[in-house]
Amino acid sequence: MLLPTQFRGVEADYHHLRSSVQVWDVACERQVQLFGPDADRLAQLLTVRDLRKMDIGRCGYAPVVDANGRMLNDPVVLHVDVDRWWFSVADSDLVLWAGGIALGKGLDVDVHEPGISPLAVQGPRSEDVMARLFGDDVRAIRFFRFSVLPFDGHPLLVARSGWSAQGGFEIYVDDDAVACRLYDALMIAGEPDGIGPGCPNLIERIEAGLLTYGSDITRDDTALEAGLDRYCALDAPIEAIGLAALRRQRDEGVGRQIRGLTIGGPPVPLVRTWWPLHAGRGQVGRVTSATWSPRLNTNVAIGMVDADFTAEGTPLDVDIAGECRQVTVCDLPFPGSSQRSNT
Amino acid sequence: MLLPTQFRGVEADYHHLRSSVQVWDVACERQVQLFGPDADRLAQLLTVRDLRKMDIGRCGYAPVVDANGRMLNDPVVLHVDVDRWWFSVADSDLVLWAGGIALGKGLDVDVHEPGISPLAVQGPRSEDVMARLFGDDVRAIRFFRFSVLPFDGHPLLVARSGWSAQGGFEIYVDDDAVACRLYDALMIAGEPDGIGPGCPNLIERIEAGLLTYGSDITRDDTALEAGLDRYCALDAPIEAIGLAALRRQRDEGVGRQIRGLTIGGPPVPLVRTWWPLHAGRGQVGRVTSATWSPRLNTNVAIGMVDADFTAEGTPLDVDIAGECRQVTVCDLPFPGSSQRSNT
Repeated sequence: MLLPTQFRGVEADYHHLRSSVQVWDVACERQVQLFGPDADRLAQLLTVRDLRKMDIGRCGYAPVVDANGRMLNDPVVLHVDVDRWWFSVADSDLVLWAGGIALGKGLDVDVHEPGISPLAVQGPRSEDVMARLFGDDVRAIRFFRFSVLPFDGHPLLVARSGWSAQGGFEIYVDDDAVACRLYDALMIAGEPDGIGPGCPNLIERIEAGLLTYGSDITRDDTALEAGLDRYCALDAPIEAIGLAALRRQRDEGVGRQIRGLTIGGPPVPLVRTWWPLHAGRGQVGRVTSATWSPRLNTNVAIGMVDADFTAEGTPLDVDIAGECRQVTVCDLPFPGSSQRSNT
Repeated sequence: MLLPTQFRGVEADYHHLRSSVQVWDVACERQVQLFGPDADRLAQLLTVRDLRKMDIGRCGYAPVVDANGRMLNDPVVLHVDVDRWWFSVADSDLVLWAGGIALGKGLDVDVHEPGISPLAVQGPRSEDVMARLFGDDVRAIRFFRFSVLPFDGHPLLVARSGWSAQGGFEIYVDDDAVACRLYDALMIAGEPDGIGPGCPNLIERIEAGLLTYGSDITRDDTALEAGLDRYCALDAPIEAIGLAALRRQRDEGVGRQIRGLTIGGPPVPLVRTWWPLHAGRGQVGRVTSATWSPRLNTNVAIGMVDADFTAEGTPLDVDIAGECRQVTVCDLPFPGSSQRSNT
């Protein structure tokens, strides 16, 4: 599965995404479907987020960790129907983890990846464009909720969500022929608004504090180190893999955490291997993603920082291929981005 | 993880592999390590191959299937030490399946992917080249056995195995610096024999009947449909996931099976999407891999064929992008290839 990284150039895509509307083919987001009498129980086992209030029609960002609390994935979970959940994952074969747990525990639940390919419509003009295809019902969908709406006579699950902070929708397309017609129809409907193809945008997602599993978050980081505290129901009476380990870590202290960073000087290059963060002579973390922000007129970055250095305003140094730059720790998301991007 | 598909061209690589010796960087083969008091039990749960006689120092081809007997992977399993097994996988995150089963069953076993990157030395001249680096002890290693031998003072697990039928070794390198020195040392030691870089070779592996997970074998095929009967201990008193389903399938009849095929006419193109196999007007299977064999002077192929058409010599037709060619069903491997490639 491949995902493009730019169409007109990362910065041109960024401005377009913030001002217009884009169609993203994010078919690489696969759905791990849990279906059957024990689907609710397995869904809760798989994530440390409390799913008890996640009614049918809702979705939410839901960290999946191992027994040590370390991150396996950070999907969006959808409560699709009675006894039916989707874990919408973009990296790693989470279907094997879910299937192994189900089999090991002897649960009565079917676990598989149905042929569902999401198409995202993102940007400030997305609601108007979507309304032309799906009618005004689409305007009534609240953030991180979904409705089933017809397109060309075919019912499609449409969620108000997406991997940007510019607003928009994700359409979960379960029919390849419909997908092609839908893509074309969106391009025509959005023409007056300057619609174009797009993809997750490096600048926009760093400004919004959207973390990437595999670079910002790794298999070795716990959900608390990843700064996902508000998605971890540490005190809820639920049975979830890794919750006990995260409780222990909270009590014993979290030794490092993902933070926002600004980096002085001219535009930085792309992070290909982590850049070490220093406080004086010692290494105290790493920069995992960085970009020049045209809007904030500085370099913005995401990094993992040792606990003693996570306070907002802490000055650090970063080593970019031998060049030392000044760094300041800050909160995510960066100013001016929606807080609602991950919910 | 990337793997090259050719160096001098697929056919030139083929002749070189069959006459000389090649070094393959197959770091994409990851080791899923099971370690702890329940490692033996988990290893047996994970494969339908009977592991009871697989003593320490042995390795073997071991299908991994789900509860329905469908293929999850076809790794080589190594019994590394007391309470320690490696599943050497090249596709899919089997570590998540193994970890999920272990957690679900409450087993006392650690499951993870250590930083071990295999380097393969393949071809008829491989033993002599290896003996120059590791001494004559390497000659004593029997097929699908391994020894721990020193290189530059560093102990390395050396197995007589590899994904060709030309003979050779796989060295499981657990230290990146050693890996670079070893690669260079092999290139120097093998110079008199015309050593060069190489990789799994399309022509050689089809002639040898070596199946590729993801094209020849899919997630939807059972181990019996994949023709792996001799690795399925259907009547052994062992606890293995999927064994009951495979027993049922054997009793009820296997509806299709992977077979060898020859295809008439001039050299075929690369299979990019499966080619349909026909008997008269009806489709009775698919060609999943195919190549021109310079040695056999015909096209050789691997395909999945409905049970009524699997007999050796059965004539079929294949549709290659609209062109019809004559096909004959045959056994794997093709004549002149070693039977020992998968053991």
